[in-house]
Amino acid sequence: MDIKEYMQTVGRQARAASRRLAGATTAEKNAALLHIAAAIRRDKAALLAANAEDLAAARAAGLETAMLDRLTLSDKGVDNMAEGVEQVATLADPIGEMSDIKYRPSGIQVGKMRVPLGVIGIIYEARPNVTADAAALCLKSGNAAILRGGSEAIRSNRAIAALVQEGLQAAGLPAESVQVIDTTDRAAVGELITMREFVDVIVPRGGKGLIARLLAESRVPMIQHLDGNCHVYLEEEADPNKALKIVENSKTQRYGTCNTAESLLVDRSVAGLLLPPIAAMLTGKSVEIRGCAETQAIVPNAVAATEEDYYTEYLAPIISVKVVAGLDEAIAHINQYSSHHTESIVTDNHPKAMRFLREVDSASVMINASTRFADGFEYGLGAEIGISTDKIHARGPVGLEGLTSQKWVVLGDGHVRG
Amino acid sequence: MDIKEYMQTVGRQARAASRRLAGATTAEKNAALLHIAAAIRRDKAALLAANAEDLAAARAAGLETAMLDRLTLSDKGVDNMAEGVEQVATLADPIGEMSDIKYRPSGIQVGKMRVPLGVIGIIYEARPNVTADAAALCLKSGNAAILRGGSEAIRSNRAIAALVQEGLQAAGLPAESVQVIDTTDRAAVGELITMREFVDVIVPRGGKGLIARLLAESRVPMIQHLDGNCHVYLEEEADPNKALKIVENSKTQRYGTCNTAESLLVDRSVAGLLLPPIAAMLTGKSVEIRGCAETQAIVPNAVAATEEDYYTEYLAPIISVKVVAGLDEAIAHINQYSSHHTESIVTDNHPKAMRFLREVDSASVMINASTRFADGFEYGLGAEIGISTDKIHARGPVGLEGLTSQKWVVLGDGHVRG
Repeated sequence: MDIKEYMQTVGRQARAASRRLAGATTAEKNAALLHIAAAIRRDKAALLAANAEDLAAARAAGLETAMLDRLTLSDKGVDNMAEGVEQVATLADPIGEMSDIKYRPSGIQVGKMRVPLGVIGIIYEARPNVTADAAALCLKSGNAAILRGGSEAIRSNRAIAALVQEGLQAAGLPAESVQVIDTTDRAAVGELITMREFVDVIVPRGGKGLIARLLAESRVPMIQHLDGNCHVYLEEEADPNKALKIVENSKTQRYGTCNTAESLLVDRSVAGLLLPPIAAMLTGKSVEIRGCAETQAIVPNAVAATEEDYYTEYLAPIISVKVVAGLDEAIAHINQYSSHHTESIVTDNHPKAMRFLREVDSASVMINASTRFADGFEYGLGAEIGISTDKIHARGPVGLEGLTSQKWVVLGDGHVRG
Repeated sequence: MDIKEYMQTVGRQARAASRRLAGATTAEKNAALLHIAAAIRRDKAALLAANAEDLAAARAAGLETAMLDRLTLSDKGVDNMAEGVEQVATLADPIGEMSDIKYRPSGIQVGKMRVPLGVIGIIYEARPNVTADAAALCLKSGNAAILRGGSEAIRSNRAIAALVQEGLQAAGLPAESVQVIDTTDRAAVGELITMREFVDVIVPRGGKGLIARLLAESRVPMIQHLDGNCHVYLEEEADPNKALKIVENSKTQRYGTCNTAESLLVDRSVAGLLLPPIAAMLTGKSVEIRGCAETQAIVPNAVAATEEDYYTEYLAPIISVKVVAGLDEAIAHINQYSSHHTESIVTDNHPKAMRFLREVDSASVMINASTRFADGFEYGLGAEIGISTDKIHARGPVGLEGLTSQKWVVLGDGHVRG
């Protein structure tokens, strides 16, 4: 069977399974999830053995340490995986929820019903825990899943997929509800992202290179996550203590996350007051400061920022700083340079805070809060399949609801249109 | 200036205007709409003259009557156009609405705010009234619009665009909030649908050929509307009178609309009872019946339906009919053959009606109601930019809300993540 034929078969099976899943009860889906979690715990030794084979092959191929880390399943990691699946079982089922049912003058009732998207293709790096996690979220939201993990993890993914399918069948649901693509051939991805008849949405979870390729080639809608070039803006009426705390937390709590602040804007009238203590805090934590000329005049150890700096997601202990005239310039700067992920204003001025909230064109916009809060768990979604920087469909942290759509329902009693 | 350069300029201007529009007040937007409507009424003679030039050129080029009809602006048509714009001014402003603001254990408040998508590209046939209509809907929803109408209407569209821009400026909003592409070069469309940096969504309003081209070439998300192969399903417990009324209205009220029923399914146990009066009604209205063998046995004048018939949107007085075993087969048939636009079950059985509602994978799913209700006005949207048969973002009739997205808002008071 060639790759195209293989992927068509996978797609056809996923579509068929998705029809059954759309009608699955909450009890059936939860039973499958609990079976899967139990099977993961039961077969921990076998999972660790499959993972050890992946790791040996990856080491032989000379993979980098960071990639080996992501590939590794520890004893504790397997427990976490099972717990994660159990946690998804505890989440409310979004499917079937009817809302806004209203009578119309014609006598019909019109409203909406939340339904699964259908078939979701997930493309991710060599991180075996994502296999269980993504399978659980798709299942709970009533979607069939086609999972394509990094090829280095294929033995681990196969082993996890077998347990997922066992759990599905134990609950009376089709095994094909979750399929792991069982080939490392890269052409499989090309097929997956162009099978419009079988795949409703693609969720890429990976680096910029992957997303760029998918953006260029995908014929299926994507819930994409590009980069997180997040801003903190200190407005004239910023409380100095809140400003210091929020910049510290936004920039330095973790350097490698997409909701970490990469750029700091500060009003000219308060730059001389606010920047010195913030610069001292940052320098104390060995964060490099790259600033505009005005910043450099206030912060002697700041190096000159280039135009490129303001576009950059460092994912490192570096921050760009710019002094601005006020709210208008701050909003314009952010809308120009940001990746539209998350931005926060620090101010005690209500009208200005509200203008920032409304006019900044990003997935998450905050008042007096750390950008680090932009996260599915912090927002109360209970789970997160990704963070979307797109505007269509799902925006920001995407939980179960982002894997659903709403159709219209009309309730009549023999009504016809006049 | 070549086409690429021209379109980049249009795109850049639209993006800049969209920033201003995102912060425009409801009063500003409504003032612009009322100015536009007044200008349309004031310059009726000039609009009719521009349209007459379009018509003369189209007649000289040998355009078909149906296309000439769509291209024609009558005296009354201009009034309707102005009224349509005034009506959009009366609709509630969806922008800025905050919802679901909740406290989280961390102390932050998290919720959503409805915001414009940004820049919307609309591609449509030579129908000048769409120019005013689309401009008004985009403006009210805070989006900048780039309008590309059929080239036969370019003089009419230019004249309307000038009045729209006059109204925008009179209200203090940027003229570039609405731009009509001022070239008939088809390459402009190719640019429009690939300028991801300037265009957030494409709304195609046209025939299948246009949509197919856009699906293949667009790099910008689309709110697409393919065809409407709508079904009415008469379940065993269908009330015969409701069944007759609903089939009559769904099929024969209008033949050329996308929410017209094209296919009828009927349970085997009641086919002999229900089909004869329905066939007599259809035949009385000269509707051709194409049926399966069982249908032909009950309805002598039915011709044999081919597999292709069940996939076909006739837009004509023809209907396909199939006898099915029951609910399972009906749902499976619809999910296989339908274009996922609108389907209706006729039954008095509650559990079966609810299963149909949940498991049929279409934008509108109805119980005991005519498929003809699938319409933005009937649903109470107040306006309609199109009907989406896609699942991502907007589904079914798309009103102002479909031209918006929701971003996350976080309200804190110096909160940082622990």
